Amino acid sequence: MFDESVQDAWRKRYGVDAPPLPDLSKFLNHRSVRKYRDEPISDTLLAALVAAAQSAATSSNLQLWSVISVQEKERREQIAMLCGDQHQIRDAGVFLAFFADHHRLRQAALRQNELAEGLSYAEFFIMAVIDAALAAERMVCAAEALGLGICYIGALRNDAEGIKQFFGLPEGTFGVFGLCIGWPEAPLKAEIKPRLRQEAVWFRERYESEVDTAEYDERMRAFYESQRMKGDVTWSTRSGRRVDLHHMTGRDTLLGWLREQGFLLN
Amino acid sequence: MFDESVQDAWRKRYGVDAPPLPDLSKFLNHRSVRKYRDEPISDTLLAALVAAAQSAATSSNLQLWSVISVQEKERREQIAMLCGDQHQIRDAGVFLAFFADHHRLRQAALRQNELAEGLSYAEFFIMAVIDAALAAERMVCAAEALGLGICYIGALRNDAEGIKQFFGLPEGTFGVFGLCIGWPEAPLKAEIKPRLRQEAVWFRERYESEVDTAEYDERMRAFYESQRMKGDVTWSTRSGRRVDLHHMTGRDTLLGWLREQGFLLN
Repeated sequence: MFDESVQDAWRKRYGVDAPPLPDLSKFLNHRSVRKYRDEPISDTLLAALVAAAQSAATSSNLQLWSVISVQEKERREQIAMLCGDQHQIRDAGVFLAFFADHHRLRQAALRQNELAEGLSYAEFFIMAVIDAALAAERMVCAAEALGLGICYIGALRNDAEGIKQFFGLPEGTFGVFGLCIGWPEAPLKAEIKPRLRQEAVWFRERYESEVDTAEYDERMRAFYESQRMKGDVTWSTRSGRRVDLHHMTGRDTLLGWLREQGFLLN
Repeated sequence: MFDESVQDAWRKRYGVDAPPLPDLSKFLNHRSVRKYRDEPISDTLLAALVAAAQSAATSSNLQLWSVISVQEKERREQIAMLCGDQHQIRDAGVFLAFFADHHRLRQAALRQNELAEGLSYAEFFIMAVIDAALAAERMVCAAEALGLGICYIGALRNDAEGIKQFFGLPEGTFGVFGLCIGWPEAPLKAEIKPRLRQEAVWFRERYESEVDTAEYDERMRAFYESQRMKGDVTWSTRSGRRVDLHHMTGRDTLLGWLREQGFLLN
């Protein structure tokens, strides 16, 4: 399904020919897939993907994350509406929500008469977010290796309280992102997206503050045009608008919600 | 190097036989590797791994992360000391530091006369941490597929200010974790670590608050014994101690540092 060679994938990412590379095509071929065949993900397949997720590194083996699969049709409709009405949430073979999770560890610690006071620091919130992300991305790499397509859903953070009610979340749990997984509709329409050149994100020994994004802006302008996205935009103009105060989609209240939810972030 | 079958890996993770599974052995076989052969990672190989990292999903294509490779011998010694004196940081083929990075986007936005005010919210800090983690874990999966071993270094957060000075970090950048990558020393001594059973981390439709970790505690007690780790410990006792106030290793001051560093987390 994702059948670009590693050289082709490199060219699409960076707009230049690749050096001689080991065959990492499976890892360079990622793109977000939003159109799926109407075909479920079996429970066994999902269990295999969860095992991949659990095989990711986790800080001090604390396993500060959880995942909930949503399969019931009506609940899929509800969660889609909670996440900006994105159709792929309804249509995917499975929808998963990933959580930063202090609850399980806190319960285990309390049973040992340990107070788990460290969890009140920002450090342990960050650790749980990292744990959830590492687990999810290993699952994603495994899914893509099997020919599945995926789409992350950041909009799970649009309405943190709504998500809490929807899943019945206890204190110390936070929906970090959603993940659609399914069999891609053929022919695949999603394209590999260009990225910043390596020298803009990968530095040697020390941080390099002066990064020229003009070259990338032009590549992205051409990419947006090829995708028939409206307006004369570059990466800088589009990204600049994405981080203005009018595009927070409810997420400007997240800190207050997190603290009420037991992530004190001290 | 990591040559367990997917069934063997499952048994080591969960302590029970596996159901019939697709061959995801490459993804289930992860373990932290701390002993490496004295053999460098070539620049081309590293570029291929960076391309894998950049191929990970990134929220709204904002690419809010960066990576710095440390190869100079003296600097490797210094960064090892900043990260709790862990020998694998010195010995690995390469040491990488991953950053949550608002700097590049803020500069690009300012050039477009956009103020990027959204970046002052906790949401965009979380987004950058997620971006860094997704990128790193895709790199890790790619590296392991090539037979390389890896070890994440959470201790990069022990001394955020020291790390800032070491790398010359500008405002809006934060060292999320380090990553050692190298060719594992043979015979491989690192073992696949048992994890919580799937029913403890994967729920259907709704969160399940009551998780029994007693079974896992016993499996981990046996695992710790097999690794000749001292003391009579279970996962719960060990994890409970890990999150008490005496084990913060400098990370209890992270929130204040982040705010001084330009992550306002509003």
